[in-house]
Amino acid sequence: MWARTIEWLGDKARLIDQRKLPEKEVYVDIKTTEEMHDAIKNMVIRGAPAIGIAAGYGIALAAKRKCDKDYLRKKIELIESARPTAYNLFYVCNRMRELLKKNNIDVSMFVGEAVRIHQEDRDLTEKLGKYGSELLPQKARCMTICNAGALATGGIGTALAVFYKAKEQGKEVTVFVPETRPFLQGARLTTWELKKNGIEPILIADGAISHILKTEKIDAIFTGADRIARNGDTANKIGTYGLSLAAREHRVPLFVVAPSTSFDLSLRNGDEIPIEERPLKEIMEFRGISTAPENVKVRNPAFDITPNYLITGLITEKGIIYPPFERSIRILE
Amino acid sequence: MWARTIEWLGDKARLIDQRKLPEKEVYVDIKTTEEMHDAIKNMVIRGAPAIGIAAGYGIALAAKRKCDKDYLRKKIELIESARPTAYNLFYVCNRMRELLKKNNIDVSMFVGEAVRIHQEDRDLTEKLGKYGSELLPQKARCMTICNAGALATGGIGTALAVFYKAKEQGKEVTVFVPETRPFLQGARLTTWELKKNGIEPILIADGAISHILKTEKIDAIFTGADRIARNGDTANKIGTYGLSLAAREHRVPLFVVAPSTSFDLSLRNGDEIPIEERPLKEIMEFRGISTAPENVKVRNPAFDITPNYLITGLITEKGIIYPPFERSIRILE
Repeated sequence: MWARTIEWLGDKARLIDQRKLPEKEVYVDIKTTEEMHDAIKNMVIRGAPAIGIAAGYGIALAAKRKCDKDYLRKKIELIESARPTAYNLFYVCNRMRELLKKNNIDVSMFVGEAVRIHQEDRDLTEKLGKYGSELLPQKARCMTICNAGALATGGIGTALAVFYKAKEQGKEVTVFVPETRPFLQGARLTTWELKKNGIEPILIADGAISHILKTEKIDAIFTGADRIARNGDTANKIGTYGLSLAAREHRVPLFVVAPSTSFDLSLRNGDEIPIEERPLKEIMEFRGISTAPENVKVRNPAFDITPNYLITGLITEKGIIYPPFERSIRILE
Repeated sequence: MWARTIEWLGDKARLIDQRKLPEKEVYVDIKTTEEMHDAIKNMVIRGAPAIGIAAGYGIALAAKRKCDKDYLRKKIELIESARPTAYNLFYVCNRMRELLKKNNIDVSMFVGEAVRIHQEDRDLTEKLGKYGSELLPQKARCMTICNAGALATGGIGTALAVFYKAKEQGKEVTVFVPETRPFLQGARLTTWELKKNGIEPILIADGAISHILKTEKIDAIFTGADRIARNGDTANKIGTYGLSLAAREHRVPLFVVAPSTSFDLSLRNGDEIPIEERPLKEIMEFRGISTAPENVKVRNPAFDITPNYLITGLITEKGIIYPPFERSIRILE
């Protein structure tokens, strides 16, 4: 099983550059907090759990440079400003801030915490995969969106972990993968890692989602999450909301697969989740070739909110949570 | 108003190469039926009404070469095989076949018919625009999909004609335009021609459609059509079905704008409309740069069916048709 999204090498973190996949498998070494901030912001690394892990190492790198409370507080703020939606980033920054409350701090506390966060995430993904895989029949036809795989976590993924675990159990899995514009996480990343790990992807245009759900027999849809509110409303990659409307229309169950570190129980509902608007260039060009006239007006929201009533279940490391989510989600408290 | 999608020059047809827009405004001269077949198949020209007009000129070019019934019958079949979904292609080929039933044929009959078909389409688009524009408020915020404009017809468009006519009436129109993968008709063509004709487009990713309909106030959606069955079910660019599901969810009226030449009244419903699967390369690469791993499995349906119950009205040159379509559509007979 391939899982080299992020590695800690003692004095630096090594990331696979996800902007270059699938054409090139390039690794970049991150040596400073500033570099990690930029790597998260510019999507060298992406995916809510992986962003959290990267943030942890970014703060560990700061502690290695200068283990001073004021200095670290600023560096945590810097990392935290990299992207607004994925909750794991704030979860990890909050854990690091807890360490600053101790009387005496030293480097090993921060490095240790970062490594622990990474290891925990690895373990969580195994559990998510296990719970989710039990839902699949012997021959399963599924759909996902974006990339919620090894490339998005410290382990084997969230949504894609379900497929990997099902395969381990001897199940046959086919997965429809929308290309997921503008960053093409589906086309570039999900197909790449599914193939690398022996699962058959079928790539489709984002616009084909509803047609495929109508005309093909699909057993279930599994998506990741960037942030989940207390009532189960889920922020995930732009397009997930449309996918969930089509899923309901064709009675295909839709499961959100996410560790408890993606749940923001301080938020009443999805309206309170900030939605990132990404650079307009992502829509207007592809690798430097323009796909639209110059100076055209663009909107590029990177996420949308899937309301809880369109979600069949939330697959967490503590088990599968079913509606009413307002009540059932409390097992995570 | 720009409208140079297709021009007849007496011994050849001149097309703007829509694959090159918006980067380059290149015109190609078509001198044989074979060249016209390829231009339609490879989407140098596209859009149901424009395909019909191109087919007419393709057959006129055959008649100029050899005005023989057997020869022309074969050339009509060749043109007809270029693409399977858009009904205008078959409508025009059927009209040309009618001419073959006469005792004596001569070149001018075929050239005349092709020019007439083009002129009729130009007139139809004016009427579509007029009827549609009356639905818009003084300040209108709309959405469309793909390109159903001047570039898709012999005149000012189908869906986009509505906006052009509204502008003529002094209305202010803003139009959200999904980029429409894989061919990017929205990003490349619709934004280009709207800007060229003084209307403000706002480009979005296809995955953002549902989020925009939820979070922005949109007055109405206008789409074109490739083929409409007797019950109102409509084949249009892949993604239209998903758009129509989101439109219903957010109570945004959705109008299909199409001349009677796109209605195939021989079909009971949308299940009988053949859906073209386009080359997989369209999904796997962009201008020669790969967007997915080699040898990945792909599905590339170019159209989907929007069921009649998701359509608010059909805007035709004979007026706006409202449900129940099974009954109201008979005014076209």
